[in-house]
Amino acid sequence: MNTLNLKNVVTAILKEDIGRGDITTKALVKSTDKVQADIIAKEAGVICGLAIVKEIFRQLNPRITCRLLVRDGQIVKPNTILAHLYGAADSILTGERVALNCLSLLSGVATATQRYVKAIKPYQSHILDTRKTLPLFREWQRYAVACGGGVNHRFDLSAMAMIKDNHRQMTRHQHMTLADAVNRIHTKFPGKKIELEIDSLAELDEALATRADIILLDNMSALDVKKSVLRRNRLGSKKLLEASGGITLSNVKSYAKTGVDRISIGALTHHINALDISLDIIYHA
Amino acid sequence: MNTLNLKNVVTAILKEDIGRGDITTKALVKSTDKVQADIIAKEAGVICGLAIVKEIFRQLNPRITCRLLVRDGQIVKPNTILAHLYGAADSILTGERVALNCLSLLSGVATATQRYVKAIKPYQSHILDTRKTLPLFREWQRYAVACGGGVNHRFDLSAMAMIKDNHRQMTRHQHMTLADAVNRIHTKFPGKKIELEIDSLAELDEALATRADIILLDNMSALDVKKSVLRRNRLGSKKLLEASGGITLSNVKSYAKTGVDRISIGALTHHINALDISLDIIYHA
Amino acid sequence: MNTLNLKNVVTAILKEDIGRGDITTKALVKSTDKVQADIIAKEAGVICGLAIVKEIFRQLNPRITCRLLVRDGQIVKPNTILAHLYGAADSILTGERVALNCLSLLSGVATATQRYVKAIKPYQSHILDTRKTLPLFREWQRYAVACGGGVNHRFDLSAMAMIKDNHRQMTRHQHMTLADAVNRIHTKFPGKKIELEIDSLAELDEALATRADIILLDNMSALDVKKSVLRRNRLGSKKLLEASGGITLSNVKSYAKTGVDRISIGALTHHINALDISLDIIYHA
Amino acid sequence: MNTLNLKNVVTAILKEDIGRGDITTKALVKSTDKVQADIIAKEAGVICGLAIVKEIFRQLNPRITCRLLVRDGQIVKPNTILAHLYGAADSILTGERVALNCLSLLSGVATATQRYVKAIKPYQSHILDTRKTLPLFREWQRYAVACGGGVNHRFDLSAMAMIKDNHRQMTRHQHMTLADAVNRIHTKFPGKKIELEIDSLAELDEALATRADIILLDNMSALDVKKSVLRRNRLGSKKLLEASGGITLSNVKSYAKTGVDRISIGALTHHINALDISLDIIYHA
Amino acid sequence: MNTLNLKNVVTAILKEDIGRGDITTKALVKSTDKVQADIIAKEAGVICGLAIVKEIFRQLNPRITCRLLVRDGQIVKPNTILAHLYGAADSILTGERVALNCLSLLSGVATATQRYVKAIKPYQSHILDTRKTLPLFREWQRYAVACGGGVNHRFDLSAMAMIKDNHRQMTRHQHMTLADAVNRIHTKFPGKKIELEIDSLAELDEALATRADIILLDNMSALDVKKSVLRRNRLGSKKLLEASGGITLSNVKSYAKTGVDRISIGALTHHINALDISLDIIYHA
Amino acid sequence: MNTLNLKNVVTAILKEDIGRGDITTKALVKSTDKVQADIIAKEAGVICGLAIVKEIFRQLNPRITCRLLVRDGQIVKPNTILAHLYGAADSILTGERVALNCLSLLSGVATATQRYVKAIKPYQSHILDTRKTLPLFREWQRYAVACGGGVNHRFDLSAMAMIKDNHRQMTRHQHMTLADAVNRIHTKFPGKKIELEIDSLAELDEALATRADIILLDNMSALDVKKSVLRRNRLGSKKLLEASGGITLSNVKSYAKTGVDRISIGALTHHINALDISLDIIYHA
Repeated sequence: MNTLNLKNVVTAILKEDIGRGDITTKALVKSTDKVQADIIAKEAGVICGLAIVKEIFRQLNPRITCRLLVRDGQIVKPNTILAHLYGAADSILTGERVALNCLSLLSGVATATQRYVKAIKPYQSHILDTRKTLPLFREWQRYAVACGGGVNHRFDLSAMAMIKDNHRQMTRHQHMTLADAVNRIHTKFPGKKIELEIDSLAELDEALATRADIILLDNMSALDVKKSVLRRNRLGSKKLLEASGGITLSNVKSYAKTGVDRISIGALTHHINALDISLDIIYHA
Repeated sequence: MNTLNLKNVVTAILKEDIGRGDITTKALVKSTDKVQADIIAKEAGVICGLAIVKEIFRQLNPRITCRLLVRDGQIVKPNTILAHLYGAADSILTGERVALNCLSLLSGVATATQRYVKAIKPYQSHILDTRKTLPLFREWQRYAVACGGGVNHRFDLSAMAMIKDNHRQMTRHQHMTLADAVNRIHTKFPGKKIELEIDSLAELDEALATRADIILLDNMSALDVKKSVLRRNRLGSKKLLEASGGITLSNVKSYAKTGVDRISIGALTHHINALDISLDIIYHA
Repeated sequence: MNTLNLKNVVTAILKEDIGRGDITTKALVKSTDKVQADIIAKEAGVICGLAIVKEIFRQLNPRITCRLLVRDGQIVKPNTILAHLYGAADSILTGERVALNCLSLLSGVATATQRYVKAIKPYQSHILDTRKTLPLFREWQRYAVACGGGVNHRFDLSAMAMIKDNHRQMTRHQHMTLADAVNRIHTKFPGKKIELEIDSLAELDEALATRADIILLDNMSALDVKKSVLRRNRLGSKKLLEASGGITLSNVKSYAKTGVDRISIGALTHHINALDISLDIIYHA
Repeated sequence: MNTLNLKNVVTAILKEDIGRGDITTKALVKSTDKVQADIIAKEAGVICGLAIVKEIFRQLNPRITCRLLVRDGQIVKPNTILAHLYGAADSILTGERVALNCLSLLSGVATATQRYVKAIKPYQSHILDTRKTLPLFREWQRYAVACGGGVNHRFDLSAMAMIKDNHRQMTRHQHMTLADAVNRIHTKFPGKKIELEIDSLAELDEALATRADIILLDNMSALDVKKSVLRRNRLGSKKLLEASGGITLSNVKSYAKTGVDRISIGALTHHINALDISLDIIYHA
Repeated sequence: MNTLNLKNVVTAILKEDIGRGDITTKALVKSTDKVQADIIAKEAGVICGLAIVKEIFRQLNPRITCRLLVRDGQIVKPNTILAHLYGAADSILTGERVALNCLSLLSGVATATQRYVKAIKPYQSHILDTRKTLPLFREWQRYAVACGGGVNHRFDLSAMAMIKDNHRQMTRHQHMTLADAVNRIHTKFPGKKIELEIDSLAELDEALATRADIILLDNMSALDVKKSVLRRNRLGSKKLLEASGGITLSNVKSYAKTGVDRISIGALTHHINALDISLDIIYHA
Repeated sequence: MNTLNLKNVVTAILKEDIGRGDITTKALVKSTDKVQADIIAKEAGVICGLAIVKEIFRQLNPRITCRLLVRDGQIVKPNTILAHLYGAADSILTGERVALNCLSLLSGVATATQRYVKAIKPYQSHILDTRKTLPLFREWQRYAVACGGGVNHRFDLSAMAMIKDNHRQMTRHQHMTLADAVNRIHTKFPGKKIELEIDSLAELDEALATRADIILLDNMSALDVKKSVLRRNRLGSKKLLEASGGITLSNVKSYAKTGVDRISIGALTHHINALDISLDIIYHA
């Protein structure tokens, strides 16, 4: 994660949750009380976001010690202790929910990714994320995808060109061929890779003849994806093929079997199941 | 939604996705091209976030017209057109993903909430959200919960006091009774409501004897919640009772039947299923 | 004080006063010169704002030592030394005015509050502040009120509901009773306390019959406040009563004698008399 | 006032007071209700801050009309209507306190200034403010001083050099004469005016012999100030003389009589008495 | 130029130059005075930055009209009028220097670029910029390079991979071949183009055998660049070749003659000669 | 340099260049690798900006040590080592370009200034900068001018009044004499110095008769400047004279010979030649 931003984002998240102050804790907990607290994964999954947890408690109270027992990307069993905290009780109670929110959401993303990665394990396809991310949360979600064994797609609209359906609506009106469209991008942005979306086998040969780097096979059946891979190989093309659309945990393996290079899954980042993680106060010194 | 913040947040979200510029659109679309585009809900659900969509396209190009056909909170059938856009093709293409991300995520939250609300319809319990929200996204998620018919719980740690399990760990070491804890908050923050968490029937009478406004029945069975309601009524107490923990769409009705006043559900905001919404370019003028 | 904000606010205040740089000090003082400086209260009062002073000099030069001899909330006699500073002369001279401005203004607020608190000492009423604060300065002024022994009223419009005169103008046109108005707030914002303003004894019984938590007796004589307290007690109501409007240091005692629970005073925060505090350079090493 | 900053500062002030939303108004006032409201000065004074009031209501609701009946700097009698507002009732109620806070505080500063200006009317001295201002509020307070007929002193430490007591402590240790100190500043910052503080008549001749532009006569009696003026005139010096320290409304005239050019008064900006201004809702359409 | 950022950057630039206010204009010019003013290029060159000029005067006074007579990228002769301004004299005088600074600096960059582009006109090489830009000014400088007919290199360290001399120092210690290094980047960042720097002909064949997209020929003589092009062609490679280092206006043609695809020039953005542009007030209405 | 701003500006510059991350370094360099790196001036010049370099590497990795071998303002010979860096190889590679950009640009400004200063060495004139600076870069450029031995002119429009050609266009229409204009500023802004621009000898006497502090001789020949100096001296005026316009390194000496006090040169800050500075990785531990 980008440490230049980490501090500012954590400050903003803390302000969002603390507001004018944690009145319950202020009223009930003495500022001199110290506790140990354990952060525990209640269910199995891939852990992600531990640096955020450290930064949260550091900002609340620089004297809290936070000892991590696992590292980002590690797969844990149910009831695994992830970290020991020790220090001021009031700060630990105040930061509890924010820390758990970040950790459980990112671990949820990493865990979902890892399920897809595991499902296609014997095959060489990569699992990729998309731009279907939570607003202002993309950088962290992509990091979680990587922790789960996925590969990150383009970060934003400037990082790579993608000629999608709606662009093709536009280029058709200008009587541009696929090659024309790809060339125009190549001329204007020579430093950028180009991905070209097609939605039927009928367009594959035309797409392979352009200088696009990647062909996106949108909403095609696994069978058509397989035909696309074979055709690409027969032509000796080095273009990458990417399958996308309608791919779920139950059918992802059939896509991976086709030999397609990349499988991109919107659900990794816009269907979220937070991992169940809790913070328990262990003893009172 | 808070219009004072809306502009700034939308600007930040646009920057996140656009980065140094939408190179595909810049290369392929003439700045003078105009299109109509329809935003369409592909599946049934509760719509939420239309003001964000308007603001996104306004910031990209103030001359785009955005005509809304539904309003936030409205339940729509599959394939309902939500809005017509008309204007510069390049700006509409550049804003497409960001607009859909916001709209489908918030509509997903509203839709999930509405399912709970509908499940308990004949009963008088309210469905509430919690502080288990996506970082920096709480204000919008809470708005979505309200659109789905839910009620918002406290915004942050300063809005109301809640004496939870971990606070009670601390007060026990100071030999404070429940009443002591409640009184201490009342004295220090006389303007704030107080909610008190208990996790067994055995504590109910002690809790009802305090001056707390709400009793949170944590992780109790529907049967125990029912006993709690009866006991509260028998004692003539006006305190509100709130059930929480382990409540899902399949068992929420059994809780509502108990007559409990409030049912709070973390999953509303930390398990997210984006509603399937798309943007189609209709014609090219 | 909220330490998450303290740094940023101090940075802004320093920029306001330093502008492009302290030209006098830059021209006259060598960067290697070191001095001791004492911060001295020239008149008696309650001290408030020492953490700001520390942060000011820390930001200007982290090697300056700042030893505090009193603590916030402490009552001091004239000519009491509040703190010893030791370190770079240029930074101390540059920060002098800003540090004294913050300290003398907040101590002025604390001192004024303490005069009211002292004036009603034998009685049980609390002295409260209001929202009549200096723009952008509310958090610090409220802290100063607390240092002076006062109690803080609601922080902002979201922290508690208050039905005031102008709201009642509006509800009357909708033919709402006091109870209607209170109930409507209770339904919409169940987590919030409700205060209800009345301006004559005639309305008291109606107000006491609502589910408001606090009744504000606006601009009533001490005699009418007394009658209100007696009536409340006779009815066995547990609602708090608050007097406000036209209460000064000379008549506050007569209000406290009535047994009213709370006395709120706008002048605490919008009539300001800075405490006279100065910084003296003691010796030159 | 600086319009580049006005918007941002008003946004910040609104956020400070509104927090998560004005719950009372949201619950009680329909968003379609419209009212007229009058802003009324309850006591006599100099009005200052009307542009802020306009901006506050513009940000809350751009369709509210705000017709000003007076202008900044105008002296008004008790019960003068300052402005008519017309528009959405909810926005007017939400902005009421913030608008009144700004207006009454700045008008309080302008009014206090005008009292000093009036007290010395037949004489030619100017009344000046100092850097003893409320944190983050200096720009607006200086504007209020100008509205009251005062003259603004240097804005910040970079705008002009002032050799004050504590600087002289430092220069003495370096064996610098007054002329040395002045020359050093002149050499290093040739574009800046220089003011030199002295605290006794004995230093006057030495000060007049430097190339300082202004001599500050600190904490001197009116008699000594008079002697200083005579001496300056006798020497034919064109330096300005400024009296400061211990000057109040009751003795300011005796200082003005001396013929001193400038009289600077810290109390203008750090002793604040808000002018009593209120907002009344007049009728309901 | 990115219009999302334009406003904020212009606000910052205006604050930098205006500080606490344009005292000369405030004292001398009545706020009701109106003038016409012409912006005139005193020397020949390529104009760039007109949208900034418009935004500057719009922020200072939205009623100023600014009619542009040329467009960005246009080559003008000496004494060409670029724009007519009409409106408030004070705002035009206050904005003059800031507008001219932006316009003359960017036009200077565009003009320098155009000289290189013109020098190699019959040949097919492109002139590229580098990351040697003025801090915080890169986006605008790159836009100016494009206005001058140049092509933009990678925006930042994330937009494309470049294996430069210092990276090769590192990979050599890990016993990585050029192909190893290129492959490692390709695996980790499959969406990114890769450029590989070599500094002698001896490395060319190894470089051409990698899967890099571009080979940077660093500090090679035109003769060696020519040999590299021939070798590349003979091998039928489609890799782009880029010459860099020691290329000036006087020798750039000899490099273009070699048939090299790209010539990148640091001096375009870090040697700046502002174009001479002035603003003349024409008449006073 | 202003250390309050240094951190924030460096953070912004790093973000500009790093974007989403330095992909080349991330792929090729192990995070545990350590190197030594030398920053070397390849050509002779005046060094400026070393504190920025330190801050850049501190932000990227607080454990990098940066030992400076020269100080700002020092004149160095070609191939002088300016600093040794030691620490994490990845951070040093990532920060290389940003550090060199800042250092070489500021050193370029300092070096250009020093050439002018040296050219007029036997004479007493000062070399001054102007407001013709790079947007958002003024503070650092002025610091560089000072490092090169120059004197800083007014920072911004509020720091000093300057009556320039376009202001005189305006005052002429109001039938104001030069003295009128100067007096009006003096009355309104008594704390500010006033500079008055004239463009012919014919206006000199009138200008000398005003109470302006400095007379700017705009675009006059060295001969006319000389006559102006003589005339000023003959009249015993203490006003400073400043020459500006059309002064270059080749003719600056002829201006200095005239005895003029100040020579201001726009080219110091808007014609930039970055000094050639590089970073070499020396060994790999």
